[in-house]
Amino acid sequence: MLNSNKESVVLDFKHPDGKALFLRLARQADVVVENFAAGVMDRLGLGWEVLSAENPRLVYGSGTGFGLTGPYRDLPAMDLTIQAMSGIMNATGFPDRPPVKAGPAVCDFLGGVHLFGGIMSALLQRERTGQGQRVEVAMLDAAVMALASALGVHMDGEDAHMPPRTGNRHPALAMAPYNVYPTSDGYVAIFTASDRHWDSIVRVLGREDLLTNPDYASTPDRAARMEEIDAMVEAWTRRHGKDDVLAILTKAHVPCAPVRTTREVVNDPHLASREVWAEIDHPRRGKTRVPNSPIRLHGSAPGLVERPAPLLGQDTDRVLSELLGLSASELAALHAAGVIEPAKS
Amino acid sequence: MLNSNKESVVLDFKHPDGKALFLRLARQADVVVENFAAGVMDRLGLGWEVLSAENPRLVYGSGTGFGLTGPYRDLPAMDLTIQAMSGIMNATGFPDRPPVKAGPAVCDFLGGVHLFGGIMSALLQRERTGQGQRVEVAMLDAAVMALASALGVHMDGEDAHMPPRTGNRHPALAMAPYNVYPTSDGYVAIFTASDRHWDSIVRVLGREDLLTNPDYASTPDRAARMEEIDAMVEAWTRRHGKDDVLAILTKAHVPCAPVRTTREVVNDPHLASREVWAEIDHPRRGKTRVPNSPIRLHGSAPGLVERPAPLLGQDTDRVLSELLGLSASELAALHAAGVIEPAKS
Repeated sequence: MLNSNKESVVLDFKHPDGKALFLRLARQADVVVENFAAGVMDRLGLGWEVLSAENPRLVYGSGTGFGLTGPYRDLPAMDLTIQAMSGIMNATGFPDRPPVKAGPAVCDFLGGVHLFGGIMSALLQRERTGQGQRVEVAMLDAAVMALASALGVHMDGEDAHMPPRTGNRHPALAMAPYNVYPTSDGYVAIFTASDRHWDSIVRVLGREDLLTNPDYASTPDRAARMEEIDAMVEAWTRRHGKDDVLAILTKAHVPCAPVRTTREVVNDPHLASREVWAEIDHPRRGKTRVPNSPIRLHGSAPGLVERPAPLLGQDTDRVLSELLGLSASELAALHAAGVIEPAKS
Repeated sequence: MLNSNKESVVLDFKHPDGKALFLRLARQADVVVENFAAGVMDRLGLGWEVLSAENPRLVYGSGTGFGLTGPYRDLPAMDLTIQAMSGIMNATGFPDRPPVKAGPAVCDFLGGVHLFGGIMSALLQRERTGQGQRVEVAMLDAAVMALASALGVHMDGEDAHMPPRTGNRHPALAMAPYNVYPTSDGYVAIFTASDRHWDSIVRVLGREDLLTNPDYASTPDRAARMEEIDAMVEAWTRRHGKDDVLAILTKAHVPCAPVRTTREVVNDPHLASREVWAEIDHPRRGKTRVPNSPIRLHGSAPGLVERPAPLLGQDTDRVLSELLGLSASELAALHAAGVIEPAKS
């Protein structure tokens, strides 16, 4: 899904010839990216100091869980542990149930795309300085930033009123309607951030009588009647399908969105019309769809999928031959010694 | 929290002089970033075509909810609606409860940082071509990618076995222990991805008898006994504090993480030792802490916080004077006409 357009070369770093080949490749490279545990590349003799001495223009990106420094440096880092330690998990879920992780691997992706942005920044800076540099992104640091609003409240010492998690309700329980509501065929998210939204949804619900009722006049008034208002909205949404709710509320200018299942997302007409997916023929998976980059460059190099993700090591011989000039007999000897993969058939 | 090191200039785009000043600034700019609804900048006469004609080297970044094209283009886009429509919400929460949003605004941040990476890519490409370009990131496109694993299963038509959400359990219910467990002072995430992890946690729990029991021998065997195994782990975690559990399981090489509250995150010794926070004195908030960038550049320009986020319009006069050469009397006339802010005191 995520390795389209790449090439795959497999070298054995435990073999001195494998390390030597990697050093030769790094001498020609613009960027090395690694996500080993902190210190592993140094112990292999392929760390930042070694590679930058060989190639001062090299940009060296390190993606870690907890960073290259600090007391948690060596803790095991996976999306699940970072969600726990970043505060994301504690902020997610219903108040009467335990904390729950965000379903997708948001910390993996937040870490990865921050590292990408940092590497591009270093390449741009190299245009000015002629020098590469090390770029470090810890998944924990990147994940923590997504809680900026909640953290800001704590930094200012105003945290008394913030519940740890509020399900699908407003984080400070300050607005209603603001929730996810059941429909006849799934769920919809609806929120009303203004008096204008309230006026509109009340008309949709056929409750124009509330428009002149002072008990519902202000946002705090309505927040105080959250349970009652949510029940009223739900009584209406239960009688409709989620796409009907979307159509009706969008026409009324009330922010609304259906809760899409994964199956609906992969078949979504909007994503299809935007060519979010590329149809490919993968040597192992067959005809399938993989994502184009969500970063759309409208200039000369848009970054679309040109070829499927490589099989492991499929480009080893060609890359070593083209970039390092290895001969067929040299490649055969390296295969025979198990330094490079896949083994020659 | 997120605008450190920036300057703030306020121009009224509804006034022709405000637009003219913006065009003059854009002629000198490297990058314009905007996140209006699709089409708004065009209607203001400040869209990509106009600005790139004025400044062919300009990189123009558009951050939208649903993108510049497609049937959902004009739907209201906030983090909540994108979580609903991207599939994130449906994948989050317990199977016996409705879908629930990820607590933090993950779609806002995924959209923003993808746009940042795209803008840096365009600036780097400009070094080769001399030309700027438009960069577009839709929050929906960026958010969908975080579900890559689940989407990949659907793309290959193997979705029958994937439950929509599994709380804190493995997404395919294929491992145990793998969950969030209550302790005496909060929760811990624990997971065992290998037989080695299982061997270790069984010893910690004092259940060495299970090591030779064939009913627990393989990962599928243990997954089939998930309820029983979770109850066994929970009986142990309930007798300890979460940092004790972390210490004991880390020593035993079992992946584990305490579920941190927001208060714990802001006081976390690891984040403090890594200088994730900068102490600043903000003109309105007073002494407080704001984040340094999670992207750590170890070269000559590390990107740390140098000054607090600006107050709205605080740099208007200085920027227009320094960059466009406006005189004091010109600035006074623009203030008087309400074209620029803040109003002169």
